This record gives sequence, structure tokens and C-alpha cells, in this order.
Amino acid sequence: MAGDKKQVESITSMKEDFAQWYTDVVTKAELIDYSSVKGLMVMRPYGFAIWENIQKELDSRFKATGHENVQMPMLIPESLLQKEKDHVEGFAPEVAWVTMGGSEELAERLCVRPTSETLFCEHWQHVVHSWRDLPKLYNQWCSVLRWEKTTRPFLRGREFLWQEGHTLHATAEEAMEETLRMLEIYADVAENCLAMPVIRGRKTDKEKFAGAEATYTIECMMHDHKALQGGTSHYFGDGFAKAFDICFADKQNKLTAPHQTSWGMSTRIIGGLIMTHGDDNGLVLPPKIAPVQIVIVPVASHKQGVTEAAQELCGKLKEAGLRVKLDDSDQSPGWKYAEHEMKGVPLRLELGPRDIAQGVCVMARRDNSDKVTASLEGIEKSCADMLDAIQADMYSRALENLKGNIRPAYSLEEAAEIISTKGGFIKSMWCGGLECELKMKDVAGVSSRCMPFEQEHLGDVCPICGKPAVTSIIWGVAY
Amino acid sequence: MAGDKKQVESITSMKEDFAQWYTDVVTKAELIDYSSVKGLMVMRPYGFAIWENIQKELDSRFKATGHENVQMPMLIPESLLQKEKDHVEGFAPEVAWVTMGGSEELAERLCVRPTSETLFCEHWQHVVHSWRDLPKLYNQWCSVLRWEKTTRPFLRGREFLWQEGHTLHATAEEAMEETLRMLEIYADVAENCLAMPVIRGRKTDKEKFAGAEATYTIECMMHDHKALQGGTSHYFGDGFAKAFDICFADKQNKLTAPHQTSWGMSTRIIGGLIMTHGDDNGLVLPPKIAPVQIVIVPVASHKQGVTEAAQELCGKLKEAGLRVKLDDSDQSPGWKYAEHEMKGVPLRLELGPRDIAQGVCVMARRDNSDKVTASLEGIEKSCADMLDAIQADMYSRALENLKGNIRPAYSLEEAAEIISTKGGFIKSMWCGGLECELKMKDVAGVSSRCMPFEQEHLGDVCPICGKPAVTSIIWGVAY
Repeated sequence: MAGDKKQVESITSMKEDFAQWYTDVVTKAELIDYSSVKGLMVMRPYGFAIWENIQKELDSRFKATGHENVQMPMLIPESLLQKEKDHVEGFAPEVAWVTMGGSEELAERLCVRPTSETLFCEHWQHVVHSWRDLPKLYNQWCSVLRWEKTTRPFLRGREFLWQEGHTLHATAEEAMEETLRMLEIYADVAENCLAMPVIRGRKTDKEKFAGAEATYTIECMMHDHKALQGGTSHYFGDGFAKAFDICFADKQNKLTAPHQTSWGMSTRIIGGLIMTHGDDNGLVLPPKIAPVQIVIVPVASHKQGVTEAAQELCGKLKEAGLRVKLDDSDQSPGWKYAEHEMKGVPLRLELGPRDIAQGVCVMARRDNSDKVTASLEGIEKSCADMLDAIQADMYSRALENLKGNIRPAYSLEEAAEIISTKGGFIKSMWCGGLECELKMKDVAGVSSRCMPFEQEHLGDVCPICGKPAVTSIIWGVAY
Repeated sequence: MAGDKKQVESITSMKEDFAQWYTDVVTKAELIDYSSVKGLMVMRPYGFAIWENIQKELDSRFKATGHENVQMPMLIPESLLQKEKDHVEGFAPEVAWVTMGGSEELAERLCVRPTSETLFCEHWQHVVHSWRDLPKLYNQWCSVLRWEKTTRPFLRGREFLWQEGHTLHATAEEAMEETLRMLEIYADVAENCLAMPVIRGRKTDKEKFAGAEATYTIECMMHDHKALQGGTSHYFGDGFAKAFDICFADKQNKLTAPHQTSWGMSTRIIGGLIMTHGDDNGLVLPPKIAPVQIVIVPVASHKQGVTEAAQELCGKLKEAGLRVKLDDSDQSPGWKYAEHEMKGVPLRLELGPRDIAQGVCVMARRDNSDKVTASLEGIEKSCADMLDAIQADMYSRALENLKGNIRPAYSLEEAAEIISTKGGFIKSMWCGGLECELKMKDVAGVSSRCMPFEQEHLGDVCPICGKPAVTSIIWGVAY
């Protein structure tokens, strides 16, 4: 084994230091590299390939529900950003400003988009005139800037990649339906592709998007029992439309303001993916999203026929539509095992002279370390079945983690006690008041995650103020 | 026909005002909308769908030749941009500067990437150490900013979308092979997907990319016989590697500087597509790139069975893998014909009660206005064949335009005379001197397009200075 190639080093264990474990994984699995600008990172091929697979899943669902991709400008004039009052208050403190073009000072400074509601509104004001022009069902893939103070790869960047959907509808009902439809698409991709179970719900007014009437969210639980917001969908009513003077002639030729939504999922979800499934050997990727689903490692590849058999096996699996990689580099099998474990490849096939003689190979699962011997006859089906099993088992384990770490609290003190001793999510009733929400943060250190669609009756009163409860709510410490 | 939907208006004719014709097409075919920032545009769904199809063609070819997608930061610190001297001289005058983050002045100003060589180099300096780490074959899809003075949709924007490939190789030979391989991929996509014939060649030193040792180009001819640079591929030697301190241990463990390339194609090519194929009725799109290849227009759709027959036809063609749209809106057939002609849909199928009774439909070609009647039996094959014929004919006509408008010039005066009376490209011999290149610009108003790979012997001396010629060269007025 050559000494000039990096060794696969062990990483910090989760228990020892979860934050350091995370940093080790994102760098040693070669997902990212740091750039010289704080909060801006390089997505390396393996990291970007994960994003491309998530993009494919989302984009096909967007298109199947009638959405069209567009591209808005990257820069927003300050005056345009200021048109909707709540929106600018929410975003102005954290935007990056372009003030010079070449050697000239700009007459008006331009911010690099932190989100594009204002740009979509400006465009719609130009092109929407009649009920025939509605609905507009648009989506954009791009990167945005938000000048955050503290940053972490994927989880909180000054730049991140995302998609932002923006839609405009003739009626409030249609817009609300769209808002919930898109939330369900996020939940579908999270649960069925990323193997990340989610809680669907509505954000409190305190936590909703700047300018929205209502924000809906999918909330995920990480290995350390903290919360990660996986995607959000916003209902705007006609507030933006009125601020931007968008109106259309309805079928009775009456001028009406349309209703609007937006929804986004970002590369942040990759951070969630890592912290949901990873372990002390590195990344663990669900087969549906893994850039490489199967790695073939030849054993004793200098022996006659091993390389050829490995190539044949690789070709067979590729033909069956599986994403497979043959690692025929000159590293040792042990080095390769560690490397592909670090990268979270769901399934490893080991193939040596004795296996070949017996017409078998060894299948090693990444998610639970099980090893079985499988016949090369029909190996495509065995692999496909195994990948399905891995996907399902990963979801089940994550669901168990989520369910096992939501605890009811019937008083502020109980909530604080649970958080300080056990962590996880708290569920409780709530009066709907901002004051109680702030008190919960103060005393127990948790923020509201959402008012879940699946409501529970945990009592009649708010455990914080004792007034009548209007909803059940989930609390947690969030990334 | 309802009055609240925009009428399909006629557009300025090409002969009357080519520039206005172009502007009419990009707006009335709903490719773009202007934003409130000069030079930044909205790519509307139809325009973006064309780009998505071009992306698919390029991306699959990049991946088939072993390239991986990555994402670099959007911002470049001033000090990083300045590391390669020629590069910064070329780009510094036209970049947009971010100077504030939130309400704070930045310690160092950051430019929005005009191109990403410096970022790739910074990353490679971190991760390339050994011959095992090479080659790096990377590509990035993104948007970039260049603060141009004059702007036109697609052709010259302060923001444009593109892909930029960046590769790093152990040897100069490998890097040069890569440079030419990628140019050939651009030529392939231009000729075989966009039906745009190209001249492949090398740029003069004056016209090459800032920091490159050699730039290769594909040059296209527009309807007005002006030139458009369709894509470029650059060979950098080891200049950037040395400036950024990238080196690797070769197999003999000797530290060596790697060799580098970059190559890009942008949304500019859509401007070229429009000006290569469009006509006085609007856009004309080649079938391989058209978002909608076939539009079905029912005639007398209120009559029994027409809508159903149109839907059945649509389903049949979709199943055959064709991109087909049924226009069942309540506009008149005439309005629809004009609308889809404006949008350049390659093939229109008209279907009325009489056609249905006879088991036929009318096929109308966009590119040459031919109309034929075809049996509904086997219509999938008739359509597929017709689309192939349209694609081939569009290429042939464009090639004829190109070939018919390149004229040899044997003196500076002859060149000037040809340009002022006939326009088009000039071909001549050239001594290789910058002075002659500048003189040609001065006297005939043309810039050098490229030294074509297909060299011609048009004499022994440079027609400008009379010194011995070293190459044949193409001149033209360029977009």
C-alpha cells in the first residue's frame, strides 16, 4: 500500500463529541472542503452527487404536479426588497450587499438573494393580468446567501443551495391546497428516499417565515435527539400581491389580488441525513440516495481470474440499473473496506478466488454490519432485495429513535427536567401565547418546533400559564 | 376569443431591424422578462426549458467522459482573484463586489464569481498531493456575474447561466487532449442537437482567455452573418498550478506541477439558436432541443368526438416518448397557430371532424411551412420521422448560410470591401502578428474569430503586412 495516499483515519466517536464527529464525517467522507470565506464551502463530487440525487427526486415530483422551472436574477435592488414590510425586517439584517460594479459605485446597492419572493412578485406584476394567466407554478434551483454569524457545513452556511418554489393562485383555497401539497412532497422525499421520519405541522407565529401568513414544516430528529427543520412551505395570502400591486381580472372581469405560496428544501437536509444515519465509522447512506449503492472489492486480485470476475459482476449489476462501483485500485482490501464504510456505501460485495470457485460472493451491509454469502447466480435480485431491506431498516431505526424520544410534559418544570436529563423532544398543550413560548425557551431552553397535524389531547390547559389550551405542540433544541 | 389574453402580435421583420426582431422574439416567445436591474433577466419557463434540454445533452456527455459535478462558493476574496496576474487583469474591471454583510463592512471585499478558476485552484491546493489524486475532472453548473456596459438578453448579460468545466492532469499532453475533447463535445451538441454548424479553431493570443496558454472555440454564423462564439475550451499549462502552489508527488515521488484546463458553454448559445433558425414569425426550434416538439390543435373542438380524438392522439405520441402538448384552451385555432409558431414548436398537428372521419390529421412543419396529411395509423412513426427530417433540414440550411458567407480576402482593402458590401466572414492568411490583427479591426471592422483546424492554403503571405503567413484565419463581426 502506497504511503502517499491519505490513510483512512478513525474519526471522533459520537459519544465523545457529537459536533466533532459531524465535522470529521463531512470532511473525511469527502463531502465538502472549506473555502477561505467563512461559511462558504466547496461541495466535492461525492457530496454534490448526494444533492443531485435529492434534486432528481424533488424535481420529478415538482414536474409531476405541474410545476415549471425558471431562473430569476441573483441580485435584488434594496428598494425591491423593502416593498413587503415584514419580509424586509426578517431578511435585511442578514444579506450580503453588492455596492460596486467594476470600479464604479452603484447608484443603488443590490443584495445577493437570500430568497426570491420579491423577484417573483416583480415578474408576476409584469405578466399576470387575467384569470387565464393563473395559476403560476414555478420552481427555481439556485444558491442563496444569508450572512449568518455562526456557520457549520450544510447546517448553517452563508451560502447554501436549495430549491425555492413560488406559486400564484386565483383563490386562497387553491393556494392553501398547494402549500400543503408541497409539504407532503417534502415529507414523501424525506421518509421514502432519505429514510428520515418527520413530524408534519404548523409553525407558531414566532417561528414562521418573514412575510408569511402561515408556515408549515417537517421536523426531523437527529442522533443526538436535537431537531432539524427539513423543509418548509409558506402560505402568504394576498399580502405580497398587494404590496407588489399584482392583480388579475377574474372571469367576471373584476380586478382581484391573487394568493401566493413558497416552499423550500436546501442542502441543509444533507446535514440531517448525516446526523440521522451516521455512526462511528462514518456516513451511512440510504440506498435510494446513495451515489454508489454497491461497491465491489476484489480480494487477492493478483490471482488469476479475480479481476475479470469482479468486472463481470460489476457489469451485470450496472445492467440491472444499480449504481455500482468496482474498486480496483491498488489499496489493500482492508483499506478499501474502511474507505467505503466512511463514505456510507450501503452494500459491499467481497469477491476472492475461493468465492469465485464456489460461485458466490460475500454481501456486507453498511447499516448493521451483517454479512451473508450469496450465489452469483441471480445476484442482481439478491442485491436489489438487500438494498430495499437496508432502506426499510434504516427508516425503522430512525422512527424508533424519534418515537422513543418524544416525552410529554405537564409543567414548565417537568419540561426543563426532561430536557436537562434526557434531551429529545417535549410534547405539551399550549395556549397559543407568545409569552408562554418565550418562557419555555427561557426555562427549558427549547424552541417550538411545530403544532403537529396529528394532534394529541394531553390536557385542557397550557402547562405554562394555566389558561385554556388551543393546540398540542412539539418543543426541542434545534439545529 | 376573449379580449383579456394578449393577442399574438406580429413582430418586427428581420430585414427591417434585426436587433429589434431579436428583442421581439425573446420577449414574445416568452423566453425572458426584464428585471429592474440592467443586464439581469428572468428566464421564464419556456426559455428555461430550452436551457434544461441543453443541460441534459451536455451533462450526459460530461458524465460519459468521466466528469463529476461539484459546487464551488459564489464569492471570491479579492486576494484570491489576484493570485494569477493575467487572470485578474482580464476580470477585475468587470466584477461585482460584495462589500457589506448585514450591516457590517467586510474586512476584505469579495467578488461574485465571474468564472471560478481561482476557486478550483484553491480547493485543489488542499486535496491534490499524489499522482493518485489525478486527474480531477470537475464541472459546475451555476450563474456568474460580469459587469458589462452594454447588455442584451442571452447574448451579453451581467448575469448568465453556464457550466464551467475545470480539470487537472498529471501531464501537459493529457491536459491538451482534454481541452480538445471538450471542444469536440461542444461541437457535437451544437451541430447534432442545436442544428448549428460550427467552425472549430484556435483563438489568437489577443482573443484568448485571461490566463490561458491557448483557447479553442466553436464559431457559429447567425442569420445576419455575424459571428457568435458558441463555446470555448482553454489549456492553461501549469501557470495557475504554480501561482496557486499546487503540486503532486509523481510515481517517482518527484514533486511536479499539474496541468490544467477549463471549458464553458453558457445561455448565450440560446441567443445563437434564436439567430440561427428564427424567422419573421418568431422562434424556430430544432426538435432535439424543443421543450414541445409537437403541438396538437383541435379544429372545431366543440363538435362531438374532437376533444376525445385529440386527447387520444396526444396520449399515443407521449407514450412513444415524444414531447407533445395538446392545446385545448378556448382560443381560436388561428390564434393557436400563431402562438405556437412564435414559440417555434417544430411540428403542429391539426385535427378536425373531417380528419377524424378519414382517420388522418394534418402535419404542419414550422421550419418550412410544408403541410401534409398523415394517417392516424402509425402517426407516432410519421411524427418521429418528420422531426428527424426537420432536424436535418435545419442543419443543412444553417450550413448553407455558413458556407455561402465565408469569402476569401487577399488584401486589407478587399476585406474591407467585402465586409461593407456583403458582410459575413472573411478568410485569409495571417502572419500571426498582433499589429496586423489590430489593423484588420481598424480598417475592415472585424475581429479574428479563430485559426480553423481545417486549414486552407490561400497564399504564402499575410495579406496585411506581406510577411510570410503562418496560418489561415477567419475574421468577422461578432456578437
